[in-house]
Amino acid sequence: MNHTTLSVLVDDRAGVLTRIAGLFARRGFNIASLAVGGTERPGISRMTIVVDGDDAVVEQVKKQLSKLVDVQRIEQLESTETLGRELMLVKVNTEQAGRAAVLEVAGIFRANIVDVSLTTVTLEMTGTGDKLQALYDLLVPFGIVELTRTGMIALQRGDKCICD
Amino acid sequence: MNHTTLSVLVDDRAGVLTRIAGLFARRGFNIASLAVGGTERPGISRMTIVVDGDDAVVEQVKKQLSKLVDVQRIEQLESTETLGRELMLVKVNTEQAGRAAVLEVAGIFRANIVDVSLTTVTLEMTGTGDKLQALYDLLVPFGIVELTRTGMIALQRGDKCICD
Repeated sequence: MNHTTLSVLVDDRAGVLTRIAGLFARRGFNIASLAVGGTERPGISRMTIVVDGDDAVVEQVKKQLSKLVDVQRIEQLESTETLGRELMLVKVNTEQAGRAAVLEVAGIFRANIVDVSLTTVTLEMTGTGDKLQALYDLLVPFGIVELTRTGMIALQRGDKCICD
Repeated sequence: MNHTTLSVLVDDRAGVLTRIAGLFARRGFNIASLAVGGTERPGISRMTIVVDGDDAVVEQVKKQLSKLVDVQRIEQLESTETLGRELMLVKVNTEQAGRAAVLEVAGIFRANIVDVSLTTVTLEMTGTGDKLQALYDLLVPFGIVELTRTGMIALQRGDKCICD
């Protein structure tokens, strides 16, 4: 399935998330990833939405989003020109293989150790979805206690700007 | 205003985000931060929701969320026992102060440099909301070109687990 990344500037108003999520649900659009956060401008949030679907679906999504009054700007990011990053926190069991073995994997991936207990280590890792998946796959044999991750956020490479 | 962090395990089904966002909007609950992502279990996503409001509001949010069929588990995280992290990408203008001045600030905060152009540097930074805000405040004088950030994700410290 095609993944397309949209960077959407929205007014930081009550109910904006509901209206956007509602639009996706009503139309049957599939969201692969969603991240919402503040921007450099007060009152404006940036949503990074990864849409599953072909070009026709993406065009429909953009058209429908642009009808919402809360939406200030929509930009489709080209994957070759985009810095995409996600964040993952993962708590790994160290009882079977020992702590050193887990820390070795963490070191290879330059993951940060953010917490340690007698039986677990918690790692923080930032990167592309593929890189996080690669770390995850290596940690599974140790036993994943729990895991949480954000959706993807993205900016264009270079000096370009999706601002006003 | 009080900030309360809820870790919510939900079925990864179409429309679940709409139902949860709709609940918050209808009831007038205010979401300070929202992050959605996969977990260690296929078909289950974890939403980290930061709610603005007093204890009565938080109790209402938990009660209403628990009525949704998509919601598998809700846990309120105590701030002293919680690892909370956000991710920020920020593109900074280097024309006025020079690149070295921006890289110096990045070094102090251990922010990663993920992209460079003739006139900008893009930094990636992970940390608590306070830490990201502190970096942001130091970068403002250089000129922020654009910025995107995720909501907060969180896990409990130690070997505890919000799983099944």
